Amino acid sequence: MKNEFITSRDVDFAKWYTDVVKAAKLCDYSNVKGCVVFEPAGYAIWEKMQAVLDNMFKETGHQNVYMPMLIPESLMKKEGELIEGFAPEVAWVTYGGSKELDERLCIRPTSETLFSDYFSNVVKSYRDLPLKYNQWCSVMRWEKTTRPFLRSREFLWQEGHTVHSSQKEAEEETRQMLNIYKKFFEEYLAIPVITGKKTEKEKFAGAEYSLTIEALMYNGVALQSGTSHYFGQKFSKAYDINFVNKDNKLEFAYQTSWGVTTRMIGALIMVHSDDFGLVLPPKIAPKQVVIVPIGNVSDVVSKIYSLLKNAGISVYVDNSEKSPGFKFKDAEVNGIPIRIEVGERDLEKNIYTVARRDTHEKINVNCDIDIVSYVNFLMDDIQNNLYNRAKDRRDKMTYKAENVEQMKKIIENNPGFIIADWCGSEECESSLRDINGLKSRCILEDEKPDHNCVVCGKKSKYRVVWGIQY
Amino acid sequence: MKNEFITSRDVDFAKWYTDVVKAAKLCDYSNVKGCVVFEPAGYAIWEKMQAVLDNMFKETGHQNVYMPMLIPESLMKKEGELIEGFAPEVAWVTYGGSKELDERLCIRPTSETLFSDYFSNVVKSYRDLPLKYNQWCSVMRWEKTTRPFLRSREFLWQEGHTVHSSQKEAEEETRQMLNIYKKFFEEYLAIPVITGKKTEKEKFAGAEYSLTIEALMYNGVALQSGTSHYFGQKFSKAYDINFVNKDNKLEFAYQTSWGVTTRMIGALIMVHSDDFGLVLPPKIAPKQVVIVPIGNVSDVVSKIYSLLKNAGISVYVDNSEKSPGFKFKDAEVNGIPIRIEVGERDLEKNIYTVARRDTHEKINVNCDIDIVSYVNFLMDDIQNNLYNRAKDRRDKMTYKAENVEQMKKIIENNPGFIIADWCGSEECESSLRDINGLKSRCILEDEKPDHNCVVCGKKSKYRVVWGIQY
Repeated sequence: MKNEFITSRDVDFAKWYTDVVKAAKLCDYSNVKGCVVFEPAGYAIWEKMQAVLDNMFKETGHQNVYMPMLIPESLMKKEGELIEGFAPEVAWVTYGGSKELDERLCIRPTSETLFSDYFSNVVKSYRDLPLKYNQWCSVMRWEKTTRPFLRSREFLWQEGHTVHSSQKEAEEETRQMLNIYKKFFEEYLAIPVITGKKTEKEKFAGAEYSLTIEALMYNGVALQSGTSHYFGQKFSKAYDINFVNKDNKLEFAYQTSWGVTTRMIGALIMVHSDDFGLVLPPKIAPKQVVIVPIGNVSDVVSKIYSLLKNAGISVYVDNSEKSPGFKFKDAEVNGIPIRIEVGERDLEKNIYTVARRDTHEKINVNCDIDIVSYVNFLMDDIQNNLYNRAKDRRDKMTYKAENVEQMKKIIENNPGFIIADWCGSEECESSLRDINGLKSRCILEDEKPDHNCVVCGKKSKYRVVWGIQY
Repeated sequence: MKNEFITSRDVDFAKWYTDVVKAAKLCDYSNVKGCVVFEPAGYAIWEKMQAVLDNMFKETGHQNVYMPMLIPESLMKKEGELIEGFAPEVAWVTYGGSKELDERLCIRPTSETLFSDYFSNVVKSYRDLPLKYNQWCSVMRWEKTTRPFLRSREFLWQEGHTVHSSQKEAEEETRQMLNIYKKFFEEYLAIPVITGKKTEKEKFAGAEYSLTIEALMYNGVALQSGTSHYFGQKFSKAYDINFVNKDNKLEFAYQTSWGVTTRMIGALIMVHSDDFGLVLPPKIAPKQVVIVPIGNVSDVVSKIYSLLKNAGISVYVDNSEKSPGFKFKDAEVNGIPIRIEVGERDLEKNIYTVARRDTHEKINVNCDIDIVSYVNFLMDDIQNNLYNRAKDRRDKMTYKAENVEQMKKIIENNPGFIIADWCGSEECESSLRDINGLKSRCILEDEKPDHNCVVCGKKSKYRVVWGIQY
């Protein structure tokens, strides 16, 4: 049933979003402006994301480390573009106890500076390379307007930082991590993404270039969902990270960095969830199955529970004092992919009911069914259905435009991704901001432009995906 | 062989400690005063600790959450004792970007205030209780003198925070978490601990009482290794956390908090390690077995590697270009519990060699041995041996004293734990500081005093363990 605490998604998307966050108890506002409390249900999704990604990182030879959370101002300033990009939005520590500090320290907005400083101490020879490090931590950016998971002053993320002895190897790393993010989004979060290169204007401060995965939300707004940056020798020159190469000559090292954040929880909500509450793909759902007992059915419930649990499925029994109707509603709002209703009267007919969260379909199954196989089959089916549904919608909301008028019309009707060719000038790119803040999402690297620039009509250099962004 | 980069433990313990930290690449000093870089080998130990503890916490019904890292000064001040205890040692954020903040914010030194503030928003009825939360994060305390893992401005920890509807349940929780810490230390870290209650003087600011586990290092210095606090209604009254109880009356809630930190890595070093480098108990070692190939032995090495890996043992092959001697030394300094040396000439005799890190014993084994069973047996044996060795030493260094003269003599000769009865007056307790900073470690709750107070000679109330602390 429609949840009375959740505004309809098609009526007020922004309100619907915060209603779902609140109703599913994912996070709560705190007394600290712009910072949220990650509640158990929200943090459990993050832990599941961490487990999968951490494994992918380790399988590709990365190791976890932890850098200090504070950065001295002088260290931060060594790389000019980075400090320019971040200075307006960092939090500054000026007192330690009652003593004013000689030099103020900022809370990390990102850790290129600290990693580079560390690398400059430990990298001596090509034999020390590559160093492929990652850290899970929180970062702080003094944002003015904030929204749960999408934009907050403090958020959780992972940041990978690697050093290589050749440009080729570093560029391969940059590409590899982008592909890992794409795989994670499509196979685990069931969210299709477009990959490409950021324009000069939109790339990360201090990067040679930035690769990105871009996802489209239910309301047609684009979400930058993960980025992988190639730094070349920019940081190694600023922080003096050099090594003796195979020719016994000093060479500056080649670096990358890459990250994804708790914003991914926001993407899960805005791509899959509905007016009933949260919808989670089974592969990322902390709780995959709930069993709701109706009447005196504890023997059968115990049996189903044990079978599923022993098969490695995350299952729980809702033994609260609520009525079955309320338990169904809880399971829906919390995004449990599969609900098994075991009722006394149904058992007399040797059946019980399995309900899918994605389609709301209810299926009567015979008590003699192999429930483990069936649940595994259903979970695969739900996972695929969520992906296909999101992809169909994304494809339907991906438009082509040849001029600014067409772009305006698309955005006015129903925003989405707009594919349009571009001459490469920052002037043309910036002018599109006038259309509801339209921005380039990424350059499609595998496609050649075959139209003139969508703005100036001159010869195009790139085929670009444009969109309104979060 | 003795490592030439490591000072002998018996010559200069403090230097030995930092030499081991550096040689095993556990952490590195950073450009941020008082903060260290957790390098892969050090962070991997922390990840292993986290995995085991997190599982123990979840099995006892705790859920992970994440609170903001910043605390507004006004919120911090609500509980008087807490701010008094922490004010001299917090870092203050006073600027966001270029704008001075209306109210300064401190980086969390601990999160009772934020949890309590959150609890006051969400706790309404006894039906909402208990709430049993934990968070993994870093905290900041503006220490003046710092030592890697033992005392640094920023360190990593977990902090559990729970709310209960009765004093009894909260006290049971406090005790349960102490027992989990004890179990973790003894069964996983192979470190015997004494458990007891902190004196009023030494308890956590704001607690009704604090329970502690205390370990003894190789040099006889005591390390407070984990604490579990019962708050009663102190915080719930200050932060207005009340609930409607079963009699339909408003009641202030009962709270606990408990934590362990990356200091545990320091304990592992100072209890088990030696002049050859790090020694790790197999249950907490990120890498349990290293295989060193000598000559053309790749078939046998692959076979042993696969067998061990498939059995869930953490194993790697040292395929670096170093000589076998250097590889042995690396394995020793890095604390790999078991080293398997596979040599061409040995294989002709159908044997290879297994070396234990704890005893340096080398054992020739027949190639036809069931290597998985043998390694599992050896790991158990090493784990037990490390525990027994530490316990024997601890027991030998635990003394009894009846007066101050005896205490002085013990501390002068060879510090350790001193058991002595005490009248309970803070004056007597404080006066012992004059003996090299001797402090109470904990009150032994299960033992009754049978001597007069070790200081004033009046009637005793408690049997107390005293020691010099880190």
